[in-house]
Amino acid sequence: MKESEIYEQLTSFGFKTPNFCSFKLNDPLPKIDFYPVALKIESPKVVHKSDFGGVILSIPNEMVLKEAIKEIISNVAQKGVELDSSDGFIVTAMTKGVEVYVGVVDDEIFGKVILFGKGGVYLEMYKDVCYIDTKASDEEIIRAIKSTKISKVFDNFRGTKIDIRLGVEFIKKVQLFVEQNPDIIELDFNPVILNQDGFTIVDSRIKKGVPFEQKELPRNRPNFFENQKIAVIGASEQELKVGYAVAKNSLISHCDVYFINQKGGYLFGRELYTKVSHLPTDIDTAVITIPSKFVLEVIEELIQKNIKNLVIISAGFKEVGDLTSEDKIKELANIHNFNIIGPNCLGYFNGNKNLNLTFGTDHVLKGNLALLSQSGAVLSALMDKAYVNNIGFSHIVSVGNMVDLNFAQMIEMLNEDELCQYISIYAEGIKDGKRFLQAIRNSKKPIYIFKTGKNEASKKAAFSHTGNLSGNYDMFKGLIQSVGSKIQDNIEALLFNPLNVVENILIVTNAGGPASILTDYIIDKGKKMYELSDAEIALLDSVLPFNWPKSNPVDIIGDAMCDRYEKTLDIVTKFDKVDMIYVLITPQFMTDCLAIAELFVKYKNSDKKIIPIFLGGELVKDALTYLRAHKILSFTSTQEASAFL
Amino acid sequence: MKESEIYEQLTSFGFKTPNFCSFKLNDPLPKIDFYPVALKIESPKVVHKSDFGGVILSIPNEMVLKEAIKEIISNVAQKGVELDSSDGFIVTAMTKGVEVYVGVVDDEIFGKVILFGKGGVYLEMYKDVCYIDTKASDEEIIRAIKSTKISKVFDNFRGTKIDIRLGVEFIKKVQLFVEQNPDIIELDFNPVILNQDGFTIVDSRIKKGVPFEQKELPRNRPNFFENQKIAVIGASEQELKVGYAVAKNSLISHCDVYFINQKGGYLFGRELYTKVSHLPTDIDTAVITIPSKFVLEVIEELIQKNIKNLVIISAGFKEVGDLTSEDKIKELANIHNFNIIGPNCLGYFNGNKNLNLTFGTDHVLKGNLALLSQSGAVLSALMDKAYVNNIGFSHIVSVGNMVDLNFAQMIEMLNEDELCQYISIYAEGIKDGKRFLQAIRNSKKPIYIFKTGKNEASKKAAFSHTGNLSGNYDMFKGLIQSVGSKIQDNIEALLFNPLNVVENILIVTNAGGPASILTDYIIDKGKKMYELSDAEIALLDSVLPFNWPKSNPVDIIGDAMCDRYEKTLDIVTKFDKVDMIYVLITPQFMTDCLAIAELFVKYKNSDKKIIPIFLGGELVKDALTYLRAHKILSFTSTQEASAFL
Repeated sequence: MKESEIYEQLTSFGFKTPNFCSFKLNDPLPKIDFYPVALKIESPKVVHKSDFGGVILSIPNEMVLKEAIKEIISNVAQKGVELDSSDGFIVTAMTKGVEVYVGVVDDEIFGKVILFGKGGVYLEMYKDVCYIDTKASDEEIIRAIKSTKISKVFDNFRGTKIDIRLGVEFIKKVQLFVEQNPDIIELDFNPVILNQDGFTIVDSRIKKGVPFEQKELPRNRPNFFENQKIAVIGASEQELKVGYAVAKNSLISHCDVYFINQKGGYLFGRELYTKVSHLPTDIDTAVITIPSKFVLEVIEELIQKNIKNLVIISAGFKEVGDLTSEDKIKELANIHNFNIIGPNCLGYFNGNKNLNLTFGTDHVLKGNLALLSQSGAVLSALMDKAYVNNIGFSHIVSVGNMVDLNFAQMIEMLNEDELCQYISIYAEGIKDGKRFLQAIRNSKKPIYIFKTGKNEASKKAAFSHTGNLSGNYDMFKGLIQSVGSKIQDNIEALLFNPLNVVENILIVTNAGGPASILTDYIIDKGKKMYELSDAEIALLDSVLPFNWPKSNPVDIIGDAMCDRYEKTLDIVTKFDKVDMIYVLITPQFMTDCLAIAELFVKYKNSDKKIIPIFLGGELVKDALTYLRAHKILSFTSTQEASAFL
Repeated sequence: MKESEIYEQLTSFGFKTPNFCSFKLNDPLPKIDFYPVALKIESPKVVHKSDFGGVILSIPNEMVLKEAIKEIISNVAQKGVELDSSDGFIVTAMTKGVEVYVGVVDDEIFGKVILFGKGGVYLEMYKDVCYIDTKASDEEIIRAIKSTKISKVFDNFRGTKIDIRLGVEFIKKVQLFVEQNPDIIELDFNPVILNQDGFTIVDSRIKKGVPFEQKELPRNRPNFFENQKIAVIGASEQELKVGYAVAKNSLISHCDVYFINQKGGYLFGRELYTKVSHLPTDIDTAVITIPSKFVLEVIEELIQKNIKNLVIISAGFKEVGDLTSEDKIKELANIHNFNIIGPNCLGYFNGNKNLNLTFGTDHVLKGNLALLSQSGAVLSALMDKAYVNNIGFSHIVSVGNMVDLNFAQMIEMLNEDELCQYISIYAEGIKDGKRFLQAIRNSKKPIYIFKTGKNEASKKAAFSHTGNLSGNYDMFKGLIQSVGSKIQDNIEALLFNPLNVVENILIVTNAGGPASILTDYIIDKGKKMYELSDAEIALLDSVLPFNWPKSNPVDIIGDAMCDRYEKTLDIVTKFDKVDMIYVLITPQFMTDCLAIAELFVKYKNSDKKIIPIFLGGELVKDALTYLRAHKILSFTSTQEASAFL
């Protein structure tokens, strides 16, 4: 499409474009009353106008315009392009303001996504852009815009304040434009001139084509997380088999659990049914641990038992090249309306029922965190780490090959669960991005996400100008954050961060240096160092040496022994507005590390989060062993400790 | 100074400035032959020209210029300023190119520092600037410039390539300008227009005044790190005294050590001399642990013994408000030409002589790392952590109140030491910045620096435009990096990073997820994942299951037990170009963590760095305990492990 045609289309849609006129090479020069202007070649022979010397800006009057036309003809001739009477020029009014960029990409995962940021020639240099879903609400648009540096123009930039509502309105108009023109697969408004009158699109490029398909929402499924009658398929007495571990872990649940093994007999005092059809009851939830070649057959049997939820632990499907079986399984699920998790996964835990259908550790505590993971190995490591740190789960789902249930559906199903208060997700790839964003948007529980693969090369070069801005980790991060979820930069944070939503932090320390380091980290994380009141300082004065600095960090001085730590903690744990207390212990001359460690048992049930940090190695070893044995979360470095803020 | 006067001064110095002419309010309009131009008011009554509507750009011809003059007169009148015949205008030619910023600040620590970066109105928004010492070499200038995003203009930006030599030449000219005009304390060239012809200074502001004094270089001192005859002043038989710990630690040294205690007697079978004057020999190095009030007296005695190096561990000086004693001590050092470390410090260790004059742990290994610390507590934690990780030291210096020797002098003295191969510095504040930069510039050993206090508010508002760009952590970081040193973002990195200078990294893992996470971290740190050759893949094929992915990370599959780890490590430790091997162990079904841990003893003396990462908690506990007992550095999270790259 020619620029003049795009202007007409945009104007008819209600976008503001500059005054312009266009004319053919041999036409007489039209009368122009909107100087200064820009002159650009319009010819299918010249695609990259700037590179061919086909653009001249800031033309003040008709005389200069005539010279400019001659110059462009000469420039493109030098590049080997002979213009003819079918070619022409467009003259556009120059508009003053801030150059911004607005674009649209069609992403394989997220579908149409809008980009907003610094425009002009610095777009690629500064990559100061944000990503906005085409379904984004006003609030999400504002959150996204504010993540850019250029958004300072909405905040009294050099004496001029532009209302951010103008930005929201413009993005909403782009959303509508994209919705009503579904064949737009690439769009580049660059620059758009922003001033107090709003946005004027000065240059634009639109590419049409067949967009990526966004999958239809599936029909209503039963809630996966409601489990009553359980079948363990492949329950085995051989300790080295997965079926043994699952059967053993399942024993302590509050559900009715039945074991299936074609050999028959007994396991843990329970009957081993030889076939699913022999079960005395319908089954709502089954876990399958038998070899992959028998899986389809057993599913058919489970369907007869009105199966609602299936956990396929068995491996040997997509990951070894067998796609057919997965497709068949998926088809059965669609026809018979049951959920599947897996195949090729670690299993499933439901804290409501104490139901551990994993072949991971049996040391799983009940708690408020739902953990969904696309890697069984990461999950088993996190489960193990959670146990020693006294962190409990409402649900654990190893999603495996994700043949059926995806993260979006699980988030939706967890919405009504009373035990689950936080959701953490370890993701390797996301499918059906629009639905994922919608699920996060509607979630009543805060969601924490770690995604791997951020340095993978983008799979497609989506966009000439902005290829390096799309289909990448930054887009994922930007979209997820704009809908209100938190991106984590380490996997352990999936366990710790949901439990560390704190604002006001106090440090108790026996050394100034490490406290100052920790303060830097805390402020970098956007958290507040609590300010002590005069009354609180007076309280601390009564137990601390005269030369303590009377501010937070509370430096109780290098000769502090266990008793001084205790007196201080007794006081600061009563400070109303403090959410979290880091206690730094540096092994100095005569510091009784183990005795100090023993103190923390006393504060284990405090309503403040109290995190001991023992800095050192050999000298703090016994203290750390003691804390681990008592399931008290502790750290040995300030950076590690603050990674979870 | 008026803009026109500054232009004249700059032009006479060889800077390029635009064509300009200036005229008084009532003068006839001069003939101008360099349209388009900018028009600006020149009046002492109008300081902030832009805010008063006193600047109009892109004026195409004389007619528009006349209108512009009227408009400015009207604009400033609206702000209440009546111009008279003493006021005037300056007209400058508009120059095309990239707007850059060049500034100079006078910093309390580093003296005159040059800033270079993106100019124009986006200076403050993007803060895309670098910091350059006035003594910086060409190489340092290039390194600094390349740390900015705007430096892409020197690298084929939109079809135009500008030679970076032009940038270096311009900065060198600014260095000279500042040197020859020492009374310049603030300078703002913004914008400077950069194009293929070089830099044209379009707008500038210069403030003169009295610059911060940079201290003179001190006279030649003895080398602190040469120690033969040692006196421990305050050696004590009371175990709770610092003097006991120092005396005990000093026993194993290869120096002649003498103990002083006014009570006399014997300690560890050695005579306790009651006075320094009773010593049978001169002393080159003394460590003082006695109460502060006796320190001056004993220094006088040590001077009689031709003391060269003094370590004052005793506290009770500046940190409790006594500045006089420190001044006196410093004066003595200047007169009698000896070095001092401290007071109020943890002491000193010299690996060359096995000389431990600290009251910290006696578990200190000899190695190649010199560690200088401004916090005794941080130092004791790092010494303790180093021991369990088998890291040895050439020197450890706790600098305490830094009354005499500063970091710069210590770096210089370490230059000739053969044992020391790396220098790590924990700094809270730097004095005498120019000399510090010079020492790093001249250092033959790589230097690693962690500095705390990065969120402290800048102590002075140095500069109208760039107050928020100066006197801050970014300046420290920028200058230090430009002279070739490495800034660390965690204190543990001061121990680990010098020993981890690696390029090609290989991962061996039993799970894909964590390996993918670790790969992301490695690439984020700018390191390379080693690419396996076909021959190397064939070697691994002979010991791994058919479905291993045949690339790095080397995924040896989830059912890997100890024997498969061993076969794999036997092969990959022989790969020539691999520098470092991370071995990821996720506790999966039947993974024999402890047996795998035991493997690493075998590779302890490999020429590759081999770092085990056991992900988990309870299940990997015994493995970690085993590794610690065998002083093998290991980690429990991928982030933690990669923090030291």
